[in-house]
Amino acid sequence: MTKYQIKPWLRRYEDMAEIHREADVVVCGYGGAGASAALEARRAGAEVMVLERASGGGGATAMSSCEMYLGGSGGTALQQALGIEDSTENMIAYLEECFGTNGDPAKIRAYAEGAAAHFDWVESLGVPYKREAIYERVVEPFGDESLLFTGNERAYPFDRLAEPVPRGHVPSREGNQGGMIFMQILMRRVEEEGVEVQADARVVAIVQDQADRVRGVVAKIDGEERFIKARRGVILTAGGFVMNRAMIEQHCAQVIPYAEPYGSPWDMGDGIQMGLAAGANVMNMSEVFLSLAVYPPAKLTFGLLINARGQRFVNEDAYLARLAHYAVQQESQEVYLLVQNEDYEMSHYMDPLHIAGTGDTIEEVEREAGLPEGSLQQTVAYYNGFAAKGEDPLFHKAPTWIKPIDKPPYALVSYAPRDVKYPLGEAPGYLMFTLGGLQTLPSGEVLTPQGDPIPGLYAAGRTTAGLPRTSKGYASGMSVGDATFFGRLAGRQAAGNN
Amino acid sequence: MTKYQIKPWLRRYEDMAEIHREADVVVCGYGGAGASAALEARRAGAEVMVLERASGGGGATAMSSCEMYLGGSGGTALQQALGIEDSTENMIAYLEECFGTNGDPAKIRAYAEGAAAHFDWVESLGVPYKREAIYERVVEPFGDESLLFTGNERAYPFDRLAEPVPRGHVPSREGNQGGMIFMQILMRRVEEEGVEVQADARVVAIVQDQADRVRGVVAKIDGEERFIKARRGVILTAGGFVMNRAMIEQHCAQVIPYAEPYGSPWDMGDGIQMGLAAGANVMNMSEVFLSLAVYPPAKLTFGLLINARGQRFVNEDAYLARLAHYAVQQESQEVYLLVQNEDYEMSHYMDPLHIAGTGDTIEEVEREAGLPEGSLQQTVAYYNGFAAKGEDPLFHKAPTWIKPIDKPPYALVSYAPRDVKYPLGEAPGYLMFTLGGLQTLPSGEVLTPQGDPIPGLYAAGRTTAGLPRTSKGYASGMSVGDATFFGRLAGRQAAGNN
Repeated sequence: MTKYQIKPWLRRYEDMAEIHREADVVVCGYGGAGASAALEARRAGAEVMVLERASGGGGATAMSSCEMYLGGSGGTALQQALGIEDSTENMIAYLEECFGTNGDPAKIRAYAEGAAAHFDWVESLGVPYKREAIYERVVEPFGDESLLFTGNERAYPFDRLAEPVPRGHVPSREGNQGGMIFMQILMRRVEEEGVEVQADARVVAIVQDQADRVRGVVAKIDGEERFIKARRGVILTAGGFVMNRAMIEQHCAQVIPYAEPYGSPWDMGDGIQMGLAAGANVMNMSEVFLSLAVYPPAKLTFGLLINARGQRFVNEDAYLARLAHYAVQQESQEVYLLVQNEDYEMSHYMDPLHIAGTGDTIEEVEREAGLPEGSLQQTVAYYNGFAAKGEDPLFHKAPTWIKPIDKPPYALVSYAPRDVKYPLGEAPGYLMFTLGGLQTLPSGEVLTPQGDPIPGLYAAGRTTAGLPRTSKGYASGMSVGDATFFGRLAGRQAAGNN
Repeated sequence: MTKYQIKPWLRRYEDMAEIHREADVVVCGYGGAGASAALEARRAGAEVMVLERASGGGGATAMSSCEMYLGGSGGTALQQALGIEDSTENMIAYLEECFGTNGDPAKIRAYAEGAAAHFDWVESLGVPYKREAIYERVVEPFGDESLLFTGNERAYPFDRLAEPVPRGHVPSREGNQGGMIFMQILMRRVEEEGVEVQADARVVAIVQDQADRVRGVVAKIDGEERFIKARRGVILTAGGFVMNRAMIEQHCAQVIPYAEPYGSPWDMGDGIQMGLAAGANVMNMSEVFLSLAVYPPAKLTFGLLINARGQRFVNEDAYLARLAHYAVQQESQEVYLLVQNEDYEMSHYMDPLHIAGTGDTIEEVEREAGLPEGSLQQTVAYYNGFAAKGEDPLFHKAPTWIKPIDKPPYALVSYAPRDVKYPLGEAPGYLMFTLGGLQTLPSGEVLTPQGDPIPGLYAAGRTTAGLPRTSKGYASGMSVGDATFFGRLAGRQAAGNN
């Protein structure tokens, strides 16, 4: 038994024989959160070193479209240029409904108050945004527009609680390369401004002294474990744990039957493990983002999402993460979309799906799909009765997406996880990433279970329980927005911790 | 700043000036798990000391009916005396469906293999059981019977996956005093056999040495902090965290709008906090037991549970915890029971409920309750069509509980959490207790996030993530069964750890 067998992610400062390198602030992980933290710490006057396990930076942010969920303060520069007003309180009202009791009021407020200025910061780096918006029901712009509705803003019940405002900000470029563009620009800034970046450096332990102050990390560099001392603080920005099967089994086993990991291969929870070893609290560990990208094409929203009982279960105009949240509650996750011929098209983000039934009457479809006799028929008859008046008294789908289902032929398409294959996923299933991690203050300070900050320890991004807390109210842009915004706060806080 | 400010639940062995008391095994918490652990450790030859924060033992077990979920091995002595066979594999098949991916296969197997012998042990203590069963749909016997169906055994989908067998074992006595009887007998045994019990002793910290081995605890006795040294091990049996509002907010905030704490006032999570401070992993922290005790009376099962959309959402013959699991998924937790006159009666365990609507037609009820026009009417029409044949193609309620809803007048009774008040709860809401805690092996050994046992540390009962893992598949008897069964294993393991 080695001395620290039971806490392999922890080393004692008193046992460190040799200091390999030393900096004011040591950042572990060079994705969106880490790069933002590093740049801000540097600009606050700190000597900063970044350690990255992969051979280059980018993390999950570089894999994304770099959508950021931004607004408030009267509107970002981009919103205002398009004549769109957005108050901070309106954004808070929306975010509060998004996360419900899981939400962190202090993070929501800090984010809503600072998001417009965060956009200025991103733009000041040189990231290109075009003063043009797309108002269709999309997940990413088809063209080079930079602003879009990204979540449930126009859907029930959000539309009743907050004025719908487009808040999805994406770098202008055709195609889904925003994350790569953003990270290249950000990393260039980081390195130009004097941050030292060490790639191929796996951080294997956090180093604490007898008073439990974090004093640095041990990293494996060139095959050897080396102590990197942090004079002011260590910032953990190592991503979530979606690629760590054992942690998924421990903390969100319920998703195993239906979810497919999506992220960087190094989203192994290393940052969370180090935080735990240093005495941190973890929270929100069972919550994940899930994607059921029925749309685009938007016209599929005219269809009806039903379960194996032929019942509807959600307003079909909700965001893809909310659709998934309700879909996985249905028995055996058996969910279908009923669609009539004029609206039929393949969903853009998923490989060809299983057609469970077709027919010239609903009865025929129902029988072919093996649904309980009469169940789909009564659901459609009820829906059509109100659809003729543009109403949906059960689920309050917006009138834009309501019309009777009465033009045959009809198809019932399975969107059960086993029938949903994303090119980005290795196997069928709804794409997921984790939304739980270290408990932090908005400043990035990592907390113990008793709510006390651990001296010298900071974290941001998916290593933490951040702004987004549940798939039910998630919207595109909430992870990259959260990681970069709170990454910056953590960088500033760590730099000031003399 | 004190030396251990950030880990107040942890002290270093090297700093302990004086040993106040010393025992082989120190048990923290004198409820069902702690008393069982203490007795077994004592019988394995250890000198044992129990520390209890309250002025006397009992814990949440003493507040319960002491139902234990037992079977397998061909049947317990009680099952066999009544001619009821119960195979271990049948019990495992049932338990696996209960907990799904949240379940711990090793604990399920250990429990199912040992449950019949556990009954012999309980009976050998002198706890009275009568060789008589009650087969009605009840939560506790009305009379002095000792065996009953306690969960979903006869309900879909469990009835398709395992042979339904009654497994609820309760001490024989009219009225709900089983837990008090059991704990009095068990505690008398514990004390007669030479275990020292110290009441009014709040354990305030776990004591670890430099090699992270647990060496004892610090307890506050007579107003002073005293070091109690454990030569072989410390067993944490301090209950769950249902009474700790801050932990509820951190780990299962989603329940706040609808759940009402139920447990011992000392279910404050102290054991979990000490385990965390010693480097343990916690898991299943967002899961709780919830109760929606629509029945008894059993005849209310003939009614239809519906949501605010007039849709059914569960087979009404499921166990009360499963009813609650599905009820809280419905929008705003608005759920109702539609019942016809001949079946109407108040639910036994809850104070008078709100009647949302009444009428001589379903249309009248629907309108009075403000449900969407036609929604309840179509649900009832569809249900009645199949009910006439004894079928429920949507939810597979057992034929016993199926009959058309066609004898007016009708009532729609609200079972929304805000309208449900248990005499046992302080405010309206579904009663709850927590199902998450320290990660342990079946032996009670407490594990780190990496899966290594922490030397000298054991736990059982609601301080751990034990056998029951979700309200969806919970059954009466699973907590007391789990706490006493795994409490005993922890006691034996700790005693053998020389």
